[in-house]
Amino acid sequence: MNVRELGEQGLLQKLQAFCPAAVVGDDAAELQVPAGQTLVVTTDVLVDGVHFSDRTTSPEDAGWRAAAANLSDLAAMGALPLGITVGLGLPGTLEVAWVERLYQGLTACLQRFQTPLVGGDVVRSPVVTISITALGSVSPARVIRRSAAQPGQAIVVTGAHGASRAGLELLLQPEIAPPAHRELYVRSHQRPLPRLDVVPLLPTQARAIAGMDSSDGLADAVIQICRASGVGARLERSRLPIPPGLSDWVGATTATQWTLYGGEDFELVLCLPWPEAEKLIAHLGGGAVIIGTTTVEPDIWLVDVAGQSPSERLTLEQGFQHYS
Amino acid sequence: MNVRELGEQGLLQKLQAFCPAAVVGDDAAELQVPAGQTLVVTTDVLVDGVHFSDRTTSPEDAGWRAAAANLSDLAAMGALPLGITVGLGLPGTLEVAWVERLYQGLTACLQRFQTPLVGGDVVRSPVVTISITALGSVSPARVIRRSAAQPGQAIVVTGAHGASRAGLELLLQPEIAPPAHRELYVRSHQRPLPRLDVVPLLPTQARAIAGMDSSDGLADAVIQICRASGVGARLERSRLPIPPGLSDWVGATTATQWTLYGGEDFELVLCLPWPEAEKLIAHLGGGAVIIGTTTVEPDIWLVDVAGQSPSERLTLEQGFQHYS
Repeated sequence: MNVRELGEQGLLQKLQAFCPAAVVGDDAAELQVPAGQTLVVTTDVLVDGVHFSDRTTSPEDAGWRAAAANLSDLAAMGALPLGITVGLGLPGTLEVAWVERLYQGLTACLQRFQTPLVGGDVVRSPVVTISITALGSVSPARVIRRSAAQPGQAIVVTGAHGASRAGLELLLQPEIAPPAHRELYVRSHQRPLPRLDVVPLLPTQARAIAGMDSSDGLADAVIQICRASGVGARLERSRLPIPPGLSDWVGATTATQWTLYGGEDFELVLCLPWPEAEKLIAHLGGGAVIIGTTTVEPDIWLVDVAGQSPSERLTLEQGFQHYS
Repeated sequence: MNVRELGEQGLLQKLQAFCPAAVVGDDAAELQVPAGQTLVVTTDVLVDGVHFSDRTTSPEDAGWRAAAANLSDLAAMGALPLGITVGLGLPGTLEVAWVERLYQGLTACLQRFQTPLVGGDVVRSPVVTISITALGSVSPARVIRRSAAQPGQAIVVTGAHGASRAGLELLLQPEIAPPAHRELYVRSHQRPLPRLDVVPLLPTQARAIAGMDSSDGLADAVIQICRASGVGARLERSRLPIPPGLSDWVGATTATQWTLYGGEDFELVLCLPWPEAEKLIAHLGGGAVIIGTTTVEPDIWLVDVAGQSPSERLTLEQGFQHYS
């Protein structure tokens, strides 16, 4: 059955089954923000053929990724989630089962992070469009801001980068002989995990912690933080968080490119005083690592202390632009 | 210049000029919810060719209406606005001037109601899509709910209904000889005013006030409230809030239809004990009126106490369904 055949009321009924019963039925949803906390709001729009496609993404994975990306934006502010709303634009010819599968993936991710789906809108559109707004809260002493970095801080990344890009490559080119860590890469692309687990481990400080998530790539995150904070950075090539097996599979040069510019790994990039940075990565374990330091001099350099590669200056232009 | 030529960064810079400086530049926006108040969230998606069209709607008016519809959803909960986010899907070939005009109309409406634009997202899409999430807050004793009506209450509407529908008719058929109140009708359609002014005038009660807004029509609002509350209603034909001059222009039958089913007047429909209802309409003046009473018997009847028209039972089927 398609969306037009089911009709608006029937579709809404099916989708409301994914919401807690208490939030359904009024013009707007109600949420409680914990006393003394700041409300944090983030919005993402995802369009069929631009941000997802049946070629590489099942509807369940599209839903999971949409939820994960928004929860990651909350983690990037140091916030924990209160709920999300979903606005859907759907062609009348779309199968209802596709929409249900989208919601299954979406709510699977939300449930993992104890986040309710609190409302939304469903409208007719010639192209499938998913618009998500995530709401979270943070106490003012724990907020993370791009603009808060200071020179001489340690630059922490919470995990490996480039695995999502590697997974995309495998999905786009299924004829490739599967590498050793195929499952890890594909899962990183299809089911990324927002780093909400990092948030409670962050130090409480008088001023904001500096950082953001790496949804647009590791290099992008470092550059954005530096630009907003008026600092530079020196990253060490040997400390780059290249995923296991990736250099063996695609070679060191491509692996480095994917790690720096791949995007969609949804880790956090944070600038902290060194003792706190070291404490944090000891807590986090896994792929968490200090990749370099912030500097007074405003450029961003990738350096090789072993002297085997020349120093490289990182720029935004090597990443992708959405309208190009 | 079109959106692709300007590029994502250039477009974001232009649009950020419409936001308060403090909210720009992080992964998410921060907002303060007043202590002790409940957060209210509502989302609408608007699609070019479905919800607006260059034929009847300038980009400024599309922006105004999008903001007004969402602020009206907040008023429908008894909430006052804290801010809105806007997710935009834009074809690369769209003129940048169109987007700026959209934002001019949107922020003109927001400014009238002291509401900041606190963030959003801009992505590529084959069809112009505007996704708005509005955030507001309400103290728990002043919340409005569809499900809170009790039998024997007065049904209050805060103003005339059908003027927006009349304005649409005039815009769709510009060759029609303009009626006496042409400007009123067209303005009601192009620049509707959400009834946030009503919110502070509502009585404070131990339990929720019953009501919603009339964005999908007056009959729809009465039916939705009755259905959610398990009551019926008896509306009096002579008390229907028909806009000035409308019966003279299109005849009593069409005027009644447009008043009941036209939609997009963005007034509030409230069920209150009679003394409080009378106090409220005395406060509101203008087109505010008591149109009938809630009943134990669950049907919704339109009756003529003068006995000139037969009683009619109102149903949702006479309104429109978005997917039909």
